[in-house]
Amino acid sequence: MTRPVHLLLSSALKRNKRLSQTVALCSSLVGAKQVSDGAKFQSLQTTRQSSTLPSHTKKTTKLKTMLNSPELEFIMEAHNGLSSRIVQEAGFDGIWASGLSISAQLGVRDNNEASWTQVLEVLEFMSDATNVPILLDADTGYGNFNNARRLINKLEHRGVAGACLEDKIFPKRNSLLDGRPQPLADIDEFSLKIKACKETQTDKDFCVVARVEAFIAGWGIDEALRRATAYRNAGADAILMHSKKNDPSEIELFMKHWNNQGPVVIVPTKYYETPTQTFRDMGVSLVIWANHNLRASIRAMQDTSNQIYRDQSLNGVENGIATVKEVFRLQRDEELVQAEKRYLPMSN
Amino acid sequence: MTRPVHLLLSSALKRNKRLSQTVALCSSLVGAKQVSDGAKFQSLQTTRQSSTLPSHTKKTTKLKTMLNSPELEFIMEAHNGLSSRIVQEAGFDGIWASGLSISAQLGVRDNNEASWTQVLEVLEFMSDATNVPILLDADTGYGNFNNARRLINKLEHRGVAGACLEDKIFPKRNSLLDGRPQPLADIDEFSLKIKACKETQTDKDFCVVARVEAFIAGWGIDEALRRATAYRNAGADAILMHSKKNDPSEIELFMKHWNNQGPVVIVPTKYYETPTQTFRDMGVSLVIWANHNLRASIRAMQDTSNQIYRDQSLNGVENGIATVKEVFRLQRDEELVQAEKRYLPMSN
Amino acid sequence: MTRPVHLLLSSALKRNKRLSQTVALCSSLVGAKQVSDGAKFQSLQTTRQSSTLPSHTKKTTKLKTMLNSPELEFIMEAHNGLSSRIVQEAGFDGIWASGLSISAQLGVRDNNEASWTQVLEVLEFMSDATNVPILLDADTGYGNFNNARRLINKLEHRGVAGACLEDKIFPKRNSLLDGRPQPLADIDEFSLKIKACKETQTDKDFCVVARVEAFIAGWGIDEALRRATAYRNAGADAILMHSKKNDPSEIELFMKHWNNQGPVVIVPTKYYETPTQTFRDMGVSLVIWANHNLRASIRAMQDTSNQIYRDQSLNGVENGIATVKEVFRLQRDEELVQAEKRYLPMSN
Amino acid sequence: MTRPVHLLLSSALKRNKRLSQTVALCSSLVGAKQVSDGAKFQSLQTTRQSSTLPSHTKKTTKLKTMLNSPELEFIMEAHNGLSSRIVQEAGFDGIWASGLSISAQLGVRDNNEASWTQVLEVLEFMSDATNVPILLDADTGYGNFNNARRLINKLEHRGVAGACLEDKIFPKRNSLLDGRPQPLADIDEFSLKIKACKETQTDKDFCVVARVEAFIAGWGIDEALRRATAYRNAGADAILMHSKKNDPSEIELFMKHWNNQGPVVIVPTKYYETPTQTFRDMGVSLVIWANHNLRASIRAMQDTSNQIYRDQSLNGVENGIATVKEVFRLQRDEELVQAEKRYLPMSN
Repeated sequence: MTRPVHLLLSSALKRNKRLSQTVALCSSLVGAKQVSDGAKFQSLQTTRQSSTLPSHTKKTTKLKTMLNSPELEFIMEAHNGLSSRIVQEAGFDGIWASGLSISAQLGVRDNNEASWTQVLEVLEFMSDATNVPILLDADTGYGNFNNARRLINKLEHRGVAGACLEDKIFPKRNSLLDGRPQPLADIDEFSLKIKACKETQTDKDFCVVARVEAFIAGWGIDEALRRATAYRNAGADAILMHSKKNDPSEIELFMKHWNNQGPVVIVPTKYYETPTQTFRDMGVSLVIWANHNLRASIRAMQDTSNQIYRDQSLNGVENGIATVKEVFRLQRDEELVQAEKRYLPMSN
Repeated sequence: MTRPVHLLLSSALKRNKRLSQTVALCSSLVGAKQVSDGAKFQSLQTTRQSSTLPSHTKKTTKLKTMLNSPELEFIMEAHNGLSSRIVQEAGFDGIWASGLSISAQLGVRDNNEASWTQVLEVLEFMSDATNVPILLDADTGYGNFNNARRLINKLEHRGVAGACLEDKIFPKRNSLLDGRPQPLADIDEFSLKIKACKETQTDKDFCVVARVEAFIAGWGIDEALRRATAYRNAGADAILMHSKKNDPSEIELFMKHWNNQGPVVIVPTKYYETPTQTFRDMGVSLVIWANHNLRASIRAMQDTSNQIYRDQSLNGVENGIATVKEVFRLQRDEELVQAEKRYLPMSN
Repeated sequence: MTRPVHLLLSSALKRNKRLSQTVALCSSLVGAKQVSDGAKFQSLQTTRQSSTLPSHTKKTTKLKTMLNSPELEFIMEAHNGLSSRIVQEAGFDGIWASGLSISAQLGVRDNNEASWTQVLEVLEFMSDATNVPILLDADTGYGNFNNARRLINKLEHRGVAGACLEDKIFPKRNSLLDGRPQPLADIDEFSLKIKACKETQTDKDFCVVARVEAFIAGWGIDEALRRATAYRNAGADAILMHSKKNDPSEIELFMKHWNNQGPVVIVPTKYYETPTQTFRDMGVSLVIWANHNLRASIRAMQDTSNQIYRDQSLNGVENGIATVKEVFRLQRDEELVQAEKRYLPMSN
Repeated sequence: MTRPVHLLLSSALKRNKRLSQTVALCSSLVGAKQVSDGAKFQSLQTTRQSSTLPSHTKKTTKLKTMLNSPELEFIMEAHNGLSSRIVQEAGFDGIWASGLSISAQLGVRDNNEASWTQVLEVLEFMSDATNVPILLDADTGYGNFNNARRLINKLEHRGVAGACLEDKIFPKRNSLLDGRPQPLADIDEFSLKIKACKETQTDKDFCVVARVEAFIAGWGIDEALRRATAYRNAGADAILMHSKKNDPSEIELFMKHWNNQGPVVIVPTKYYETPTQTFRDMGVSLVIWANHNLRASIRAMQDTSNQIYRDQSLNGVENGIATVKEVFRLQRDEELVQAEKRYLPMSN
């Protein structure tokens, strides 16, 4: 597989922010034609994406632009409508709808215990509550290619911008669980699943990210590369290369051999101590902060519940938590106040 | 309406913990006959309820026992499966499924924007995740008596122990919202709704709590008393008297005139500075800490999202939040580890 | 309110098919500007709409075109994905998602016993299974203006082309039930609800039909006219005038006084003996065959169940019912056969 | 494996109705102890089961009694609340919640396109609408043992009496589809899945039926026997032996070798011409009429839609279909009439 010039350029740009500031084009927005297997001329921009894309830009286009941007981009985990809005308000340009977090907030395990339509309903609330794109951690696609393409169809209806599918077997296991086997999907079967999803989407900018679990399952760089290449060739908009090592060595090794065949996404939950500049230097496209809102909320709720239980009083917690008024603000009550003035008879 | 001796006794007991320690009977558990309109001999116990009730006690019986206990009892807000388990682990004997919190976590407003079956689905996850009873903040019952009794039927199926219905109009408004009218339900219509619910339940210990919004709507003690009495006579297991004053004066006034006609529940969100002993002295049965897990999680997620956005790194938050392992523990992964040993073939 | 010339023309056209064949314009498709309060130049066409609109025409545009067409148009009831496809295959250009039929097939009553999201889920299956537009019998909008506009938003996401709201009180009663009061909504409140829905829709061709229950509730022509006019002025794309008389006298009276202020929809369930030409002569736009697939299926299932029960054998019914192969065809199994060839590895 | 005397007796009884009339005991009801691997003394009765079991008998107990009865019993397909009630009214003692029919009515394919919770919601409406037991056609259990046992838990909450699991791979294919492979589950893995389900149920009478697809997949009698025996030993309450031949030869062969190790269920959709006495003579326990209400409704709706489309009138169909009044009756409107008298204020 030959590597188009623009991809090498993009790689160079990712390593040099100043260089990137000299270029400005965005294929998704100007409708440039595809030039090779799924790859496109990439979005290059001088400032934060959110401020340069027109405000009416589709969520899908926003996500695609982030994946193909020469900048290192970041998206943050959310697990319901509320956390989604908080992520957006913090300034993030995208949301990671984490399978672990969603299952955990529901109170079930990250083993496809919630049905895919229950997950979809959470997604709809998240999408309704925000304007930034959501990338769904879609496990295996919840079955075979037919289940996966059905999912893609429903995500498009709900305004979700992309889905990340992993090459494991339904029902899945969380990748960070220790001591249990992580059987991988057949490489051909999974490639065709990616292809089915890409051929199902009706919005050309909807993103399908292929998550490679080779390192998680104990395989080496060869298997990781083989899979990443196959999935990219099958149409994946990006490759998510997962690793549960405490250092980024596996990712580093992969990036060295990948030769920038397409955007790469990483999830540094375990190698969180690695300086972010390292990811930039490697040419990574997107970093996912994968479960930290969930984990922050757990600690806060445990502390708060424990203290109120112990004190039999609210006095000790009132000042350390959001106000009721802040809850109303996050619920956008003000819009309803105005709407009631407009749509309720005076007498009411 | 005459007040039975045992209710006056209960009132006295609530004010004197030592006295209560000399008595021990529990009508719900030994099957005592009803002696007057819905009231029963109350559960009296020397230690925390949870340790005295047999572990296999039904959730409904647990809740009913709490309502009728001479002790001041406490339940704590939760809004999904995760927060429910946290409340239980903190030691609380019951959970308040807050309408405000559930709507807020979904990302919608507390105006019946989520459908009642969407709320029910959240409830089911909460119930599945816990052993302690859940009392649902059921707004108006989501319509008329027929919608309300249908709800009761579904709550029983889901293992929810009780429902609190408020005497407002569907769709409801949150009681703490300022500056908007809070029209009350017709008193007869609401009393019959309570009656319909009580006659629908199949488990005699399922609890229907009638929430009086008279003070919220700007009415005085006469209206509050008139409504509380009517609802109690209609079969309500308890009265929730709501107030949004910053002090407990309205509650105090009510308790003085109520003459202990039945258990009273309060929600001191606004008068949180009042010492808890004051509620005990008044003869209140149950205090609801109504939305503090939600508010704690908001603050924590805002802080965490903001910091990660600013730092472009996880380093600053990792030590202040729950571990991934703690997430797995809360999801009860260990049970699945054991089950997989039992139910998966060796080779797998 | 003055009546624009084009509306009088439309009325004339409805009564004279030959005349209509001499004109051909369609505002929805060519983007003609609005000329008066919600009314538009109407779609005039020489042959069946379905064959003249381009195949890629949006469902909303199809429905709007039907409402404004000078021809008398017909839509047929369906209550799930299966019956929807059958209606489409029979040749109908649109589907009536009947509240009575949907509640009946679910096994509940037509009193808002199913939640609005449960109805929405049925709608989604119906929409996914068909290409022709669906008009939802949306009761009162399931609450106030805020619930109604939220519904509109969701219907648009699901590909439903329009919603018909009736001016009654939530929870509703079926209009054909005898002997029970049918309280009407406040006319201002309902008009503002219509307005809220129209201002919420993002697709300009989404249709909001206002259903007038004045005759059903025992009121006369004045009330019917007053309401129809108010709702049309509030933005309703059409008026559904309901009657449960065995003859079309109420409809006739209304049409005489309506002066073609906008498209009129009728539901001749009770006055089914009236020749269809009568409706054409009156200037009606759209006839809804409202519940006949449901009723046909009931009779067929009762007969079949009874016979199999009696015979303890399938022999007597096999030839009178659809084949299993026909079930597969209706499920579009053939598409999956082809997809499996494309997306499953050879070995599978 | 030795065959207990009572099983041989049961087999004899199934062939001789008069003999069976001399015996009358029912283990489920009198609490007889288990005597061998999952088998119990069977319910013997002189008349139709429904009349002999006390009316308050649990649905699970009713189904278990049917499976173990020496009579040949029959259950009939339903696919929503409405058809369920029709089946019950026809006199059937149980309902088959067909996967094919439920998917078809929803408008999707019988390949797990609907999520398991969407199926569960259909089931809940069916269960709420009826008193007779429902046996769910639960495909593979919608995943591995963990998904399956989670399903069992939910079915118990919804009042569903039993689940039939088939030894295929998720996502499933309908057994009657021609020309496509039907890969079977690993025999050990499926046996452990059955065991997991049985150990999960909290009601001892909940029924887990193991469906053997060996014949469907092209295997012979040895594989069918091997699987049936393994599943029965794993705790299955009955074996459903499926065949898509046009004659009962495969079933006959199986019954000859099965030696009555436990109740056998059949689905004579393809060999419908076989006289029912043949099944009785073979010693079959339960016959499922698997999809005939669906197929009857399809034919009726196609005929009705076609005729109304052609006639542009209801006149031709009105007398051949159920009345609107009959719809109301099936919805149990009368109960609501009475309830409104009881629970609505006079003025309403």
